[in-house]
Amino acid sequence: MSADTGRLLSAGEIAALTGGRLVGAAEVTVARVHSLQHAQPGDLSFLASARYLPYFQQTRATVVLVKPEFAAAPGPATRVVVPNPQGALLSLIPVLHPEPPWTPGIHPTAQVGTGTRWEDPVALGAHVVLGCDVRLGRNVRIGAGSVIGDGVAIGDDTQLFPHVVCYAGTVVGRRVILHAGVRLGSDGFGYVRDERGEGHLKIPHVGRCIIEDDVEIGANTTVDRGSVDDTVVGAGTKIDNLVQVGHNVRIGARCLLMAQVGIGGSTVVGDDVILAGQVGLIDHLVIGKGARVAAKSGPYGDVEPGVVVSGIPARAHRETLRAQAALYRLAKIVDQLEGLVTPSQTASDGDES
Amino acid sequence: MSADTGRLLSAGEIAALTGGRLVGAAEVTVARVHSLQHAQPGDLSFLASARYLPYFQQTRATVVLVKPEFAAAPGPATRVVVPNPQGALLSLIPVLHPEPPWTPGIHPTAQVGTGTRWEDPVALGAHVVLGCDVRLGRNVRIGAGSVIGDGVAIGDDTQLFPHVVCYAGTVVGRRVILHAGVRLGSDGFGYVRDERGEGHLKIPHVGRCIIEDDVEIGANTTVDRGSVDDTVVGAGTKIDNLVQVGHNVRIGARCLLMAQVGIGGSTVVGDDVILAGQVGLIDHLVIGKGARVAAKSGPYGDVEPGVVVSGIPARAHRETLRAQAALYRLAKIVDQLEGLVTPSQTASDGDES
Amino acid sequence: MSADTGRLLSAGEIAALTGGRLVGAAEVTVARVHSLQHAQPGDLSFLASARYLPYFQQTRATVVLVKPEFAAAPGPATRVVVPNPQGALLSLIPVLHPEPPWTPGIHPTAQVGTGTRWEDPVALGAHVVLGCDVRLGRNVRIGAGSVIGDGVAIGDDTQLFPHVVCYAGTVVGRRVILHAGVRLGSDGFGYVRDERGEGHLKIPHVGRCIIEDDVEIGANTTVDRGSVDDTVVGAGTKIDNLVQVGHNVRIGARCLLMAQVGIGGSTVVGDDVILAGQVGLIDHLVIGKGARVAAKSGPYGDVEPGVVVSGIPARAHRETLRAQAALYRLAKIVDQLEGLVTPSQTASDGDES
Repeated sequence: MSADTGRLLSAGEIAALTGGRLVGAAEVTVARVHSLQHAQPGDLSFLASARYLPYFQQTRATVVLVKPEFAAAPGPATRVVVPNPQGALLSLIPVLHPEPPWTPGIHPTAQVGTGTRWEDPVALGAHVVLGCDVRLGRNVRIGAGSVIGDGVAIGDDTQLFPHVVCYAGTVVGRRVILHAGVRLGSDGFGYVRDERGEGHLKIPHVGRCIIEDDVEIGANTTVDRGSVDDTVVGAGTKIDNLVQVGHNVRIGARCLLMAQVGIGGSTVVGDDVILAGQVGLIDHLVIGKGARVAAKSGPYGDVEPGVVVSGIPARAHRETLRAQAALYRLAKIVDQLEGLVTPSQTASDGDES
Repeated sequence: MSADTGRLLSAGEIAALTGGRLVGAAEVTVARVHSLQHAQPGDLSFLASARYLPYFQQTRATVVLVKPEFAAAPGPATRVVVPNPQGALLSLIPVLHPEPPWTPGIHPTAQVGTGTRWEDPVALGAHVVLGCDVRLGRNVRIGAGSVIGDGVAIGDDTQLFPHVVCYAGTVVGRRVILHAGVRLGSDGFGYVRDERGEGHLKIPHVGRCIIEDDVEIGANTTVDRGSVDDTVVGAGTKIDNLVQVGHNVRIGARCLLMAQVGIGGSTVVGDDVILAGQVGLIDHLVIGKGARVAAKSGPYGDVEPGVVVSGIPARAHRETLRAQAALYRLAKIVDQLEGLVTPSQTASDGDES
Repeated sequence: MSADTGRLLSAGEIAALTGGRLVGAAEVTVARVHSLQHAQPGDLSFLASARYLPYFQQTRATVVLVKPEFAAAPGPATRVVVPNPQGALLSLIPVLHPEPPWTPGIHPTAQVGTGTRWEDPVALGAHVVLGCDVRLGRNVRIGAGSVIGDGVAIGDDTQLFPHVVCYAGTVVGRRVILHAGVRLGSDGFGYVRDERGEGHLKIPHVGRCIIEDDVEIGANTTVDRGSVDDTVVGAGTKIDNLVQVGHNVRIGARCLLMAQVGIGGSTVVGDDVILAGQVGLIDHLVIGKGARVAAKSGPYGDVEPGVVVSGIPARAHRETLRAQAALYRLAKIVDQLEGLVTPSQTASDGDES
């Protein structure tokens, strides 16, 4: 845990803040949040799923947030019953672990280009570089070393952690969070083969990279600018670390892109789509609203709205599981099948395992 | 679109610049390039494949570059017929959207080590760090915050965007483009198991990282130095974002490595190879000249020149597609097959779906 | 090869330093290490596996380290016979290619927050930013542009290459190596769905990111802080480039995580586990001590200690190979099978290849 300046919370206060039902002593207090497994006396914890019941029974936590179905499960004496224990934490963590306040100001080592303007208060960290004609909204915080190109616009209440780079012309909305090493607006991967057959000619990129409001983007993630259109990440979408978003991609609102996802050029991702870790989308696909793509999967074609797909190439998740199961059952009988069906034709193919 | 200082182009001028055949009014003018779907009056657009014919019919673009087979397709009145519409853009974008000129000079916050030399003009951005005995060619531009280690050599006309790091000894050719966050010359992943069985002993790396002429490398991509040999990226090769190139790898000329590709140590990639997104090559492979590896695939063995492979482990693409199709058809019949062939042996294995 | 200040070694000295048996002339000398294929006269090389015997026979290297089974193989006259040629290099490279000494000191452009302390000697590079209350051990070296947040602790003899970012509260052990662009302690990917069904609410992260002793982390790798628990990378573990470690992950000691591996939240990885390139572990898994996961694989469930798994979803490696082989044999007979088993039912499904 990081050093905290929060205050203690009693079980009774926790019930009041979360609208939960208190079971046990109202006056016991907690100083911090911790997992069931690693909690110590004086800690608040939470039980979100039956998977963690063994830890619940043995936890040393003083107070535990639990779902109604675990209200009477064996475990610590003091608990607060709420419909969504993790959601309930959102009203408690800021009291127990308040974020340190930020100090407005321009670090003396920051470099600011001509024509650049902002609305106070803002914070520019050490060695920040702002180009010319940059626009920053109110409460924008830019972490140390970040480099913001000419003509970039950043909306109110947006936070850049250290070492973010925004290429010239990038547009970032309000309440956006960009983690360390995010690169926005780099040229996409676009070339035309030289007509003399020698080498690749670079297509100059003139589209923008647009990040809408309430987006969070994880460390070292890259979002290319568009080639002729813009690349757009829709409002409320959350992107994990080391994700790649190619040129001209349009991502809808409230999507979740987990770590190391890659999206090829010009692909369109609808609202509320979930792409699990290491998913790859080739270029020029359309992923329908609310679709989900399982971890490591790769659709080779469009995905219908609302469906769950998996595999490479991805199919309906249920179909993929069925095929996988069949495959492993198959290995046990394929020798006999070969003999049964075409004994002479396949015998010469050998066994490549 | 970013702010432009370009000039208008008439349809007649477009035909002249591209060597195309004009259909429609020669005097109408355009101010920028945009996609068929998002173009407005006053825009130039292009139709590269039949897939976008529906957008072509409804586009508001004033002039459209089209292939000969679409010369008479229903759509906007003014069009310029060229064999390769995307290629034709290469002669038009620089007029409509000229790149802003760069200003030579050494930013006062840049740090330059002893023995470092360059040929004017060059541009060193804010907070750039050059080590000792660095050599920069003419017209080298180094973006803000980049760190160039001792003894690095960078050729004429090469551009580094902000936050590039070149470890000591790295060699970068002419007309190279390195995007934000590129890391060149980091130690490879090489260890020897401690003979007492405890832990891994680091192998000191003494090889170089060499980037030949006309290479472009995408944001946050990493290329390790060699352990005893050099790591080499061949002339004209283009590398996308978040790619990993391991130690001692040799990549030939004019290859295309798409986003999130990973190449294991000592693997050799021939000229003109295409590795699609998220491809992984294990160490010590040889990929033949002109081979292509489909997205997300992973060969476990060498790949012959000129072939197209896919799957994990990768096989001939046609064979992979055939096997995948068979697999999904199989799921529908494997229950019967089990009964047909060995009713008692497989019944106890259950269904793992 | 980078410029070296090392000294010559004779074959006799090499035998003495490695405890090997000399075959050939004791007085010939070498100046550097190189591969069999690219070595020149005056170079030392090594033959680690039979795969490289063709290069051994033709190498121009003056001295070659060989395993006992190759002591008499046709090849260069002077060789030193050792059980582990690569391991033997560890005692020779530092003599032939000594690392340049580092110069203690605080670069005048470095920024240091209040309450920050260290034990001399340390080196802070140009434009380094240390927050408040940072603690650095003896011999800590921090590369140019690195940003170290408030309250970070870094142990003795640890080296940060340029452009590392440690978020506030991160703990780094002794003898750790962090390569360029490493991000430690960024917020994990944790959200709660807004109860009104609109958007995702961010879970504040209060756990730490802890890197134990003797860890090495590759370029542009990201390790998130814990949400309520800590994220821990165990002692002696080595992590390659572009790896993602999610929040609350616990990685044991002496693991090897190769390039582009991704580990989902709260997954536990035992000691001595090997995760090959591009492996993905979903969240909340347990990977047993000494297990190995093959390149590009993705277990969907826990992995037992000591086993080798591969595939997506991953199974025992032997079983995966068998199933793959069966699959490709299958494609040749599935048409007949369909006719054999259920001629009317499957005929209408078509062939999706």
